[in-house]
Parts: sequence; C-alpha cells; structure tokens
Amino acid sequence: MNEVKVFCPATIANLSCGFDVLGLCLDNVGDEMIVRKSAEKGVRITKIEGANLPLEAEKNVAGVALLAMLEELESNADFDPIAIGFEIEIYKHIKAGSGIGSSAASSAGAVFGANELLGNPFSRKELVKFAMQGEKLASGNAHADNVAPALLGGFTLVRSSNPLDIIKIDSPNELFATVIHPQIELKTSDARSVLKQTVSLKSAITQWGNVGGLVAGLYTQDYDLIGRSLHDEIVEPLRSVLIPGFDLIKQSAYENGALGSGISGSGPSIFALSRGKETAEKIAKGMSAVYDKMNLPYEIHVCKVNDTGMKVI
Amino acid sequence: MNEVKVFCPATIANLSCGFDVLGLCLDNVGDEMIVRKSAEKGVRITKIEGANLPLEAEKNVAGVALLAMLEELESNADFDPIAIGFEIEIYKHIKAGSGIGSSAASSAGAVFGANELLGNPFSRKELVKFAMQGEKLASGNAHADNVAPALLGGFTLVRSSNPLDIIKIDSPNELFATVIHPQIELKTSDARSVLKQTVSLKSAITQWGNVGGLVAGLYTQDYDLIGRSLHDEIVEPLRSVLIPGFDLIKQSAYENGALGSGISGSGPSIFALSRGKETAEKIAKGMSAVYDKMNLPYEIHVCKVNDTGMKVI
Repeated sequence: MNEVKVFCPATIANLSCGFDVLGLCLDNVGDEMIVRKSAEKGVRITKIEGANLPLEAEKNVAGVALLAMLEELESNADFDPIAIGFEIEIYKHIKAGSGIGSSAASSAGAVFGANELLGNPFSRKELVKFAMQGEKLASGNAHADNVAPALLGGFTLVRSSNPLDIIKIDSPNELFATVIHPQIELKTSDARSVLKQTVSLKSAITQWGNVGGLVAGLYTQDYDLIGRSLHDEIVEPLRSVLIPGFDLIKQSAYENGALGSGISGSGPSIFALSRGKETAEKIAKGMSAVYDKMNLPYEIHVCKVNDTGMKVI
Repeated sequence: MNEVKVFCPATIANLSCGFDVLGLCLDNVGDEMIVRKSAEKGVRITKIEGANLPLEAEKNVAGVALLAMLEELESNADFDPIAIGFEIEIYKHIKAGSGIGSSAASSAGAVFGANELLGNPFSRKELVKFAMQGEKLASGNAHADNVAPALLGGFTLVRSSNPLDIIKIDSPNELFATVIHPQIELKTSDARSVLKQTVSLKSAITQWGNVGGLVAGLYTQDYDLIGRSLHDEIVEPLRSVLIPGFDLIKQSAYENGALGSGISGSGPSIFALSRGKETAEKIAKGMSAVYDKMNLPYEIHVCKVNDTGMKVI
C-alpha cells in the first residue's frame, strides 16, 4: 500500500464540566486527507483545498505532527530511515477557528495515515503525542483533548498531560451531538484570555463531582446522569459572553430535549448532546431558528458520536 | 420483627482526588447497633458502650438522623404514626475523630435499622438524606461522603449535594484498604480551617482529571489506573502537615506496593489502597513500623472494600 485516504473527524473538547480533560469524536463531520509514501525523505504537503493554510511542512500542523513521528522512527535502529518520506493532500471541511478541532483533525490525520502506510508501528494511543505537536504549532499549547478523541473515537479522558495518560471511554450507543457554528471569528487566544487563573474551591468541587458523574454515566449508559453532569460553572460563564446568542441557543437546546449543552472547545461552536437522532435533529431546528432570527450565518451538524475515530476510507 | 442488630461500617471519605465527593465502605471495621421497636413514640437511646456520647436523642447523631426519618414518615398519610417509636443501643468501635466516619456509622445505622423494622419504606439511597442530618449535628455540615458509602457499600460519588445525587460504584473485587489511626486529636474544625477557599485552575484541572480517571478505573477494574489517579494536590498538602509522620507513612505504603495513599476523611487516619490482602497486610506492617519508631500509639486495620454496606447481623 503506497497511499491511503483518511477521514479526519471533527471533535468536541471540554464537554462542559471536563475543561481541558474530556473530548468526543464526531461521526460524519471531518476533513479528508491523502497520505502517500514518497521516495524522497521528509514531508511535503502537495495540495490543500478548502482552506488557506501554509504548504511548508514546518508551518503546517499536519506536517509538524508527521515530522515529530518520523523523528521518533528515525531514532529507532530497527527502522530504515531511507524508506520514510511522505506526501500529503489535505481537503479541509472543518473551518479553522470553529471550535470543533480543525487543527486536531489535520495533525491526527497525518500521523494516522502515515502509520497505516508503515504497517502501524505505533498504536493509536501512541500517535497522540505526535499529533499534539501539531496542536502546539496551532495554539502554542500541546494539548490532547481534540487529537485524542479524533484518533481513538468515542469519549477520551486526558487524566494527565505530563506524563500523558489517556483513557478511551466507549460512547453509549444512542448518543448524538448537535453542533452549531456561528460564523464569527473567536480567537483561541481571546477565549484563553478571559479565563481566571484561580477558581473557588466550592466551584471546583462541583466540577469534579460532575466529571465523576459524566464518566460514570458513560460507563453505565445512563443518559439522565450524563445530562445531569453536563454543567460548567467555571469556564462557560466567562467564555459564553463572547458567543452571540449563547444563552438563547442553549435554552432552545434544552427545550427541545437536549441532555446538556455548552461551548464546543473554546468556541464559538455550541454543542448539545441528546439521546437519539430525532431529538438531535429537533435541537438543530431550534438552534437554527435562533440564529435565523438574529440574522447570523451559521453551519449546523447533527452526528452520532463516532466510537472508532479516524479511519481509512 | 421487633429488633435488629446492625453492623455499621467505617468509611473512607475524599480518597485523595475526590475531596467532598468520593467515599468507600470498609468491610470489617465498624460499630454495632441494636434498634428496637417501641410502643412509645419518638426515639430513645438506652445504652452507649465504647464512647462517651449524649443519650438524649436530640443531641446524638443517631437520634437526630432517626428523628428526621420519622418526621418524613409522619408527614405521609399512609403511615400510622402511633406505631413509630424506637429504642437504640449503640456499641461503638470506631473512635470519634478518627477520620473513618464514626458519626456517619451511627447516623446511618439508626435509620437503616429502623427502616428494616418498618419493612423498608425507604431505599438505601433515600436513607442518605436522613443520615446526613446526623452529620450536620456532628460537624455543622450535612455532608454525604461518609453516610452514602456506609449505607450503599462500595464506592460512592456524591455528584451533587443540592439536589442530592449519589452514584454507587461497585468496587473491583481484589481491592483492599489499609488504614492507620494515630492516636492524636485532630478536630474537623481545625482540618477545615487550613483549607483555602480558592485553588489554581491548573490544580483544579489536574484534580478533575484524576476524579475522572479514578471513576474510570473502578468501572474497568483497572488497578493501575486507580493508582495513577489517587493524587491530591489541593487538600493533602495543606492538611497532611497536621498529621505526624504523614510523609513517612505514605512513602512506606508506596514502598510496600500501595496503589495510592492519602488522608482518610479529614484525618488523622491515613489510608492506602492495594490489590490483594497480602499487599494490604505488608503495607500495614510497614506503616506500623513507622509509628513504632516514632513511639506514637496507633490502631491499624486491613479490610476488603465492603461492596454491600450496612447490614443486619
């Protein structure tokens, strides 16, 4: 096999209570990427469609992630470095800055595709650390909360970043996400700057009670418990003011049967989780009506939680 | 049935990362209590052995908890209030102020025993709120993190206190606890007063990552993950200085194979969790040696995690 085409799924990080530790993988929203073996050493990005991103490998998240992987392979005496060279074509569908893991999809896609072509020397979990180097280029912070669910699927818990400790949690079968992306620009740096560096002990306790509840709800497929746990009294109050119509969108989601609703990643996308596709579509309709009324352009997605993650197509 | 004898187990609250939300039930450490139906309305404590505690029901945690339950029953038109009166005999084995849920054992034991005699009008989970009234008398704070595991067994997560939302998590089968109780006085009020009312966002994220990891480890019976998650960088550094030899005890526990070790409740007892009885006993030996060397009197317990909680004996 000299070439693979990869589906690089979008992801929702944070998930209300799980700021910086939880994420989930979406099923039918994502980029496509072709990764091709090449006789020439190194990484070349030969084509990017759908986004205005740098072709130089060192300046592109996909290139940087794959170069990190190749560096580790080259330090392994069992591997023939001469054979290692790749070309990448990127077909972006996830908008940059949407808050559903655009950079993560590219970073993770490149290492996943190359790993497939090399006969999978690394497990999906091992690929996370390479993909994190792409995230570092994108945001200055080598975080795993989007690349981990993109690679592993389902829900992921980043128990610790250093040392990296990631737990994959299977998604309950009927869990659907609705995600609405208002077409405004919200820089991750701005979304970061509104955070406070300290939190009250009381709020922190509420938050870790909810993280425990959400994880328990996922393992026991208890949709109500998942819903009761999807709250965030630490980050959402600070960030939601940056997102137009946030309260109305969230209220509409609950009115239409959402288990929970909150900011996707650092925004501006807003997600809702629900049991069953029908409810997820009803929520999408309600969310759309809110932005229609505000005359605010948006994209909206309804998807099952993708339990297997990145895949060859 | 006019009389029941109840085993009222000791409990470990907080469990490192799970401050104010997590707890577990111990297997063979606990009080005994006899609860007897009485023709006379109300609650009378007729005997207390092993501790110097008030006999007046309104001043005793067991009495207060049971009175709270009777009050709710009397508000129920289906119940004959004339038939509701109880006598309680308490045989304390858990020392007050030890940090392994002495007041919780009595509060929970009284409502559990009376509920049995009445044909179980309440579920174990419903009994928690009554037992919490005993905790309120004991510490000024109606917390559930000891009474919930005492009643339900295994591990319990108090996702929320208001409204009360408790999740029982079964214990992995081979999980054992070692608990050492140095014979010093450490008032809960002092242990509370060293806490800071704010925490850094960074530490809070670490903590909720660990709570998620611990809950995941319990559901998947992943002992290593349980061990990796048993850390507390928020409360333990502040409280452990109040406990003589804490660092040495903890170090010894890890050297003898503990999965994790920390302060039990608000101390001064120190717990370690381990896989298998043999390791738990080795840890007990190591902990004992530390306090023997310091000439500090102590009690030490080795027990399986009790997965069923309070029981009639």
